[in-house]
This record gives sequence, C-alpha cells and structure tokens, in this order.
Amino acid sequence: MTTISPALPYPGASDQATPEETDPQGVFSLTEYADRLARVQELMHERGMASLVVVDPANLFYLTGYNAWSFYMPQAIIVPAAGPAHLFARAMDAQGAHHTCCLGPEQIHGYPEHYVHRPDIHPWDWITERALEIGVLEDGAEVVIGVETDAHFFSPRGFLALHGRIRQASLIDSHELVNWVRVIKSPQEQTKLLLAGRIATAAMTIGLEGVLAGAPQYEVVSEIQRAQAFGTPGVGGDYPAIVPMLPTGASAGTPHLTWSQQSLRSGEATTIELAGVHDRYHAPLARTVSLGEPTPRLRDCSEAVAEGLTAALDIFTPGTTGREVHAAFIACIERRGFFKESRIGYSIGIGYPPDWGERTVSLRAEEETPLAAGMAFHIILGMWQDNWGYETSESVLLTPTGHALLTDVPQGLLVKP
Amino acid sequence: MTTISPALPYPGASDQATPEETDPQGVFSLTEYADRLARVQELMHERGMASLVVVDPANLFYLTGYNAWSFYMPQAIIVPAAGPAHLFARAMDAQGAHHTCCLGPEQIHGYPEHYVHRPDIHPWDWITERALEIGVLEDGAEVVIGVETDAHFFSPRGFLALHGRIRQASLIDSHELVNWVRVIKSPQEQTKLLLAGRIATAAMTIGLEGVLAGAPQYEVVSEIQRAQAFGTPGVGGDYPAIVPMLPTGASAGTPHLTWSQQSLRSGEATTIELAGVHDRYHAPLARTVSLGEPTPRLRDCSEAVAEGLTAALDIFTPGTTGREVHAAFIACIERRGFFKESRIGYSIGIGYPPDWGERTVSLRAEEETPLAAGMAFHIILGMWQDNWGYETSESVLLTPTGHALLTDVPQGLLVKP
Repeated sequence: MTTISPALPYPGASDQATPEETDPQGVFSLTEYADRLARVQELMHERGMASLVVVDPANLFYLTGYNAWSFYMPQAIIVPAAGPAHLFARAMDAQGAHHTCCLGPEQIHGYPEHYVHRPDIHPWDWITERALEIGVLEDGAEVVIGVETDAHFFSPRGFLALHGRIRQASLIDSHELVNWVRVIKSPQEQTKLLLAGRIATAAMTIGLEGVLAGAPQYEVVSEIQRAQAFGTPGVGGDYPAIVPMLPTGASAGTPHLTWSQQSLRSGEATTIELAGVHDRYHAPLARTVSLGEPTPRLRDCSEAVAEGLTAALDIFTPGTTGREVHAAFIACIERRGFFKESRIGYSIGIGYPPDWGERTVSLRAEEETPLAAGMAFHIILGMWQDNWGYETSESVLLTPTGHALLTDVPQGLLVKP
Repeated sequence: MTTISPALPYPGASDQATPEETDPQGVFSLTEYADRLARVQELMHERGMASLVVVDPANLFYLTGYNAWSFYMPQAIIVPAAGPAHLFARAMDAQGAHHTCCLGPEQIHGYPEHYVHRPDIHPWDWITERALEIGVLEDGAEVVIGVETDAHFFSPRGFLALHGRIRQASLIDSHELVNWVRVIKSPQEQTKLLLAGRIATAAMTIGLEGVLAGAPQYEVVSEIQRAQAFGTPGVGGDYPAIVPMLPTGASAGTPHLTWSQQSLRSGEATTIELAGVHDRYHAPLARTVSLGEPTPRLRDCSEAVAEGLTAALDIFTPGTTGREVHAAFIACIERRGFFKESRIGYSIGIGYPPDWGERTVSLRAEEETPLAAGMAFHIILGMWQDNWGYETSESVLLTPTGHALLTDVPQGLLVKP
C-alpha cells in the first residue's frame, strides 16, 4: 500500500507558494474550474450535445463552486457547447450566489418569487424561457440537449415544464456525464479528501468511545455531530450528505435506520456509519462495536469480512476492475458461508444530501471500469442478516501505484465490556 | 395568546393512561394511521383517483411510520382506493421496513439490487410492474392515478418508467393531496411539535452563546448540532431536514449559505437558523446577533420587523387568512421603509431533507386559506439586503382560540459586545 503524505499542501494555507485566483470562498483555483468545464464540453461535443442541463447540487458545486442549501427549490446550471455555464436559481439565492460561485453576474439568473409552490406555474417554465432567450438552450430540429433525468432535485413536473417548451430539439438523458468527469480527482481534490478523512477519523474515534451500555442513541450521535462540524485542529468540518446512522441490536439487520430514543444495550452490536466532510468532499467510514462478548456468528462474520477486505485491498490498484475487487471479496466470505447481494462500494468525492455516492463506478459483479489513480471509493461491507448485522468500511484513494486509506481507525469488530 | 400546557401527554410516557397499539417505534397509535389513510382515501374518492403514488418521505412517514435514510433510492407508497397502502423500496430497505413501518409484510415489496444505478433498467420499472401485478395500480381507460410529480426524490427518469408502463390510465398530478391532509395536526402531532420546540429553544440558546468575535463558524455549529441531537432532558433530538444555517457579515444578505471556515467578526451581524426536531416533527427558529453596536439601518430593520411580527401575531388566530397575516406584516415594515418580496411563512410539521416546509399553506399575498386550529407555521422574517441582512422567526401552533409559540427565546436583535 502506498502512503500519501498527510502534509499535502492545503489550498489557502499561508505557506502556499503561488497564490492562484480562486472562487469566492477560496475552495478551488479558477484554472481548476476552467479545466472541469473544458472536460465536460469535450464530452458534450463527443456526444453531440448542444447544451447540458445540470441539476445535481454536487455537479453545480464541481463546475462553479456554487454552494448553498438552496437545492430544495428548482435550480440548474446549463452548460452550452462553448462559453461559460449559466446558473438559474430562485431570486433570493441568485442574489447571493456570488458569495460562493465563480460565475459572473451576467451568468446568474434568478426566477421571481411568485413561481414558488404554485399549482399553475413552475420555476422551470421561467428557467426554460430565460435559457432559450439568452441562447444557452437552443430549440431546433437537429439540436440535442442532454438532461440529468435521474439526478435528485429535478421533479417530473419540472422536467415536463422544460419538455413542454422545447418543441423541436431532442432531450436525451445525460447518463451522468458530469459525474463521470468527477471520477478522477485532481491534486486539489485529493487534498480535500485527505482532510475529510482526518475528520472522519476524529468523529469515529469519539463515536466509538460513546458506545456504552445504557447510553441513549441520541447522546452518542450528539457527540459525533459535534465532532463532524468541529473537524480537526484548524480544519473545520462541513455537513455530511447523510446523518450518522446507528443501526443497533435487531435493527442492525437493515442499513439505513437513523438513531432513536432507545439506549444501547449490553449484549448487542451497534454499527456507526458516518462521514468526515471538508469543503463538501466526503470520507465515509463504518465500524461495528459489540457490547459484551459477540455471538460466534457475529465473530465469524467479522473475521470473514476482514479477510475479504484484505483480499480486496490487495488488488486495489490502477488497472483492476470493480468486478475483480468484488470477486476477491465475495470469494473470501463465501468460503466461510456468508453471502452478500449488494455492491461492496462506490465512487466518492463531493456529496450533498441525500447521498455521498457519485453514482458512477461501483464495486460489483457487472463493473468493468478499471480503477485509475485519482479515483476514490467507499468500500462498504454491510452484512445485513435477519435481526443482526455487521458493517465495516474504508475510504480509499487510488494512487499511481496502489492506494492509500483516507482514515486511520483500527479495523475489525470492536469488542467493549 | 393562548398558552398550551407544556405537560401535554407524551405518547410512550410510562404514565400514559390507556396504552394503545402503535407503530413499531411507538411514535403514533395505529388508530391515528388508520384515520390518516381514511382521510387520504376520502380525498382520492372526491377527485376520482383509483390510486395515489406517494414519494415524499414525509408522506411515507405520515401514512405508515416508515422512517429510514433510504430516500436517496427510488421508493414509494401506493395508496389504492380502498384497503391498505403498499410500500415499495430497495430490497435491503424493504427487509428492515418493519422496524419503523406499520404495514404488514405482504404490503412491503423490495426491488432487487441489480436495478440500482443502471443505464438500461430502473427501479421504477420494477415498482410499476409489481404494483400492477398486485392490483394497487390498475391500467384501464377510465382509471385516474394521482402522482406526486413535484415532490423531491422522484426523478424524471423514474416518472417516465412509470408513465411508459401505464398504457390506458391517466396520470394526474396529486396537487400535494397528502401534504394537505397533513396541514391540521392531531393532538399526538401537536405534542411532537411542542417537544421539538423545546429542543429548538435549547439549541438556539447554546448557539447564541457561541456567537463571539473570533469564534470559527464551524465551532459555533458544532455546539448547535450537539444540542440538536441531545435534545432536552429525557427527550432526544432527531436530525433536522436542513443543517444549521449561519449567514454572517456580507453573506447575511443571502438566506441559504451554510457555515464556512471563517471566524465571526466584531462589527458584523450573524443569523442562526435551525430547527429542533423530535420524531421528525420540526420547530424551526431564527435569531440574529450583532457583535458590537449594530448599524442604524440594522437597528431600524430589527425594530420594523418586531412591529411587523407583533402585528402578524395579533391576528394569528383561526379564521384569518395567510393573505391578511402577510398584509399586517408588510404594512408595518413598509411604513418604516423596508420591503420584502418573498412569503413570510409556511406550514410546518414532519420534515425530511432537503426541506422542513409542508409545501401547502404559505403566508403570502395570494393565500386565501383560512388559518385553523391544529395548523402550525414557521413565521420567517428574512430581510436580505445588499451585503447585510436581518432574520428572525417563530414557530407557531394555532389553538382553537388563538395561537401558542412553540419556542421560548427572547425576540428581537441580540446585541453582544
């Protein structure tokens, strides 16, 4: 395994050698954004798209730095074949977009307040008309417009409003074009991931300390949430795309339960799944704690998974496919009588609620994409059984010759008295 | 103003007189769920709907108690004209749905893992086919199916998969049918809101204490997030639909910025907007703090808003319309030279990311719905100006004869040295 120096320069640090012009919050250099846009437009060209309608908040952030909790209202970036992208958002959000977004004022458009939550008109009526008017959307018989039709925060009604105003051009699914451009992380992004990993390490350490018989679940989570925002010295945390999950006892047999009013009980196992986040980059991490001696079956499962993880990491290097990684893990656990139907990991990077996955490369039987340096994955080994479960994970960055773990928390089942 | 006793019985409390059968987590009685379903089916009947496709996680929780962070994958409840609702979710989530959901196993359907994130097939292919097969969806020339086409977490691609498999029936927009049933809160729900209000009070008190010159924003938020989950003695907090927002200094001129790596500065104003949450019920609250003497304009604005809030609350009683409340507020601030385009409040109750609004009744010029006992609102007075802002809010429950505030934090601009 290659080890990455944790002292990678952090953009914005005072000892940075060549200060570059950045977005308003100093998160990325303008050169970086220009490069991202160029790669998106290049792919658009290959696929014959005259425009691309982008609605995923992570893609908005990736392309322009735009970052606000405004995605509960319709908003989009429309990328033309050439020239700058344009942001469309509710007027009150458009007005403040320059605090985070690297677009100029003439590329930011706010729809009026009276379009909000109305049965007769929809913000996408306005967005489409304005986009046609300024030419970032074009309606013609030969024109192809890519649309993120399976992203979060684009409602069918919004899509139908867009569709209804485009009379001649073809709307085609984007097939996550921008998400696929995001798969390889630049050095600046890798630094964000490393910092997110340190925050995950800190938050998980505190979470594991809090798992005690009799502790109410909400108390354990309260300390985790404090640690997630507090970050590590000098490096604040950002909000995670998913709140800490705490399946415990019988409910550990299912993956996505959030915490409850119940207390942790001796004799039960509890899983903590959380992410450290910095500047929207996520390093997720899961561990399981047994309060008291684990059942033989849980012990067995944790050992099988540990072997599987080792086998998966052994080949986790550029050139290997997701299918091969998956097969290495599955072979180990099946030898010990365990089975898993769902994928064992997915590409990570920028995350916004409700998901920190990139929706591109998965570690599963059908995945033929080869791993490459600069990719990052959450390898998540969730074994959800009838009324019990075991879960452990690692966030991993691909290096030119191997990989590096983003976090540093002892692996395996933690047994506490 | 009517005052509600804070000692309203809390379901699940040991001194509860008549223990009723509840959902698996003891959040609501089964009678309550039966009543909710009956009211939804009555409205469906009035509108001639044979089925209703429900995707909003808040509506899933309202109708069945189903509660998990699984909404990043396609899921739905389909309500037939008569008989029980059916839940459709990813297999790994369907398997654990009985931990929170009051439906029987024969009403819970899990789509196979290989439908996840695939370019060729979509979970909504499976959901639609299964729903047709078991008869909760019917495809016929005279059949009308209501669909939540403007809810979060229903992608255009998902909708098109549904649409493509329904050959004869008409799909019509639900116009937020279930959300409108949610508008009047039952006594059990009102208790949740009161407990959420207490948590909001605790979290805001801690947040306001943390606003100090030199404090990094993420540190202030870390204590707020701890308090939100910790709750108040014996009553744990749940996760908020929106993370704490902390517009500060020049960025206070825009409403939805989340916290950053910056520190708070003397001479600047900072707004905290957060929610207390209990069992998914939200009591949002906003306050603004000036570090040092406020500018005359900010002082003016806070006083105008205080007068406007008093005028709005004076008539905040059953029978008044949202239009009248809005007009009372606007008249006060305009007399003092302030203007506001956006609505001044919205109905609240259950919330899931990315929004804690119910998307039904708004407090705005066009709103003719009369207020009624059991409704609850977030009255949010956000004055977003060029490079500065002021924001304050109250969460308010309508009683038979007036209203009660859900939280207890001194109103007005807080000035700290």
